[in-house]
Amino acid sequence: MTVESALTRDEAQIHRLLADQMSAICAKDLDRIMSFYAADAVTFDIKPPFQLKGNAALRQMWEQCLPCFPDGSLSPVTRDVRVVAGGDVAAIHWLSQFAGWPPGHPAAEMWMRGTAVYRKTGGEWKIVHDHVSVPFDPRTGQIVPKPEA
Amino acid sequence: MTVESALTRDEAQIHRLLADQMSAICAKDLDRIMSFYAADAVTFDIKPPFQLKGNAALRQMWEQCLPCFPDGSLSPVTRDVRVVAGGDVAAIHWLSQFAGWPPGHPAAEMWMRGTAVYRKTGGEWKIVHDHVSVPFDPRTGQIVPKPEA
Repeated sequence: MTVESALTRDEAQIHRLLADQMSAICAKDLDRIMSFYAADAVTFDIKPPFQLKGNAALRQMWEQCLPCFPDGSLSPVTRDVRVVAGGDVAAIHWLSQFAGWPPGHPAAEMWMRGTAVYRKTGGEWKIVHDHVSVPFDPRTGQIVPKPEA
Repeated sequence: MTVESALTRDEAQIHRLLADQMSAICAKDLDRIMSFYAADAVTFDIKPPFQLKGNAALRQMWEQCLPCFPDGSLSPVTRDVRVVAGGDVAAIHWLSQFAGWPPGHPAAEMWMRGTAVYRKTGGEWKIVHDHVSVPFDPRTGQIVPKPEA
């Protein structure tokens, strides 16, 4: 990961939480993925539905999604990470992809933009909102899943 | 706008900033749009590029984009707004569309998901990061720009 500036202790912690969450996704560990979220988290995922409200909806999405991931071959690639933390709210954004898809898989070359918002409750940072997307070409309605450089 | 819970003073302020920013977009007021942003803001826009880093890139995007908006007819429609503020970092997310596009315009029926992260500097909340998107269908690569309900 690229760290763009000196980090406070909270910022470093949010950074590690993102890295841990990425590892949990690659390990297809549903309980560990869910452990990063507050019960009332709202997720804007890269695919429909438009929003997932609360833990149960999010868990169901991951239950359906994880079987499509290869076993053990994925690893996260993250760049342009920036984190801000102040008091008991923090946010992080990044670009990422997963390396290790089978050759020719539609997700193999795909980058994503991610944003996560954390709130500290009882001393623990939990995601209250996250947002993952790719931009699209307004002329065609097709996604453009590659950074320019 | 839907306000989901009682708001702190900072949260109410972030709420108003979002409403003001939407009005500035509808008024095609470039300087006012830019006034909501920190100089080093990073934007993940709904269309390419993948990310816009800093005020100059963001301003250029809006300069190119605003002439495509109709004069005086747009008004913002926002729902499912949720804001969190703590110390000097805050975040807000929402669903929105602009009403008043000419009939048949591709943007007329389009909803967006938005997330904005604010940092308070010198007593003023400024956007340090925002992210606007629609989900897409992984089978076709086409966007699905409608909430389910």
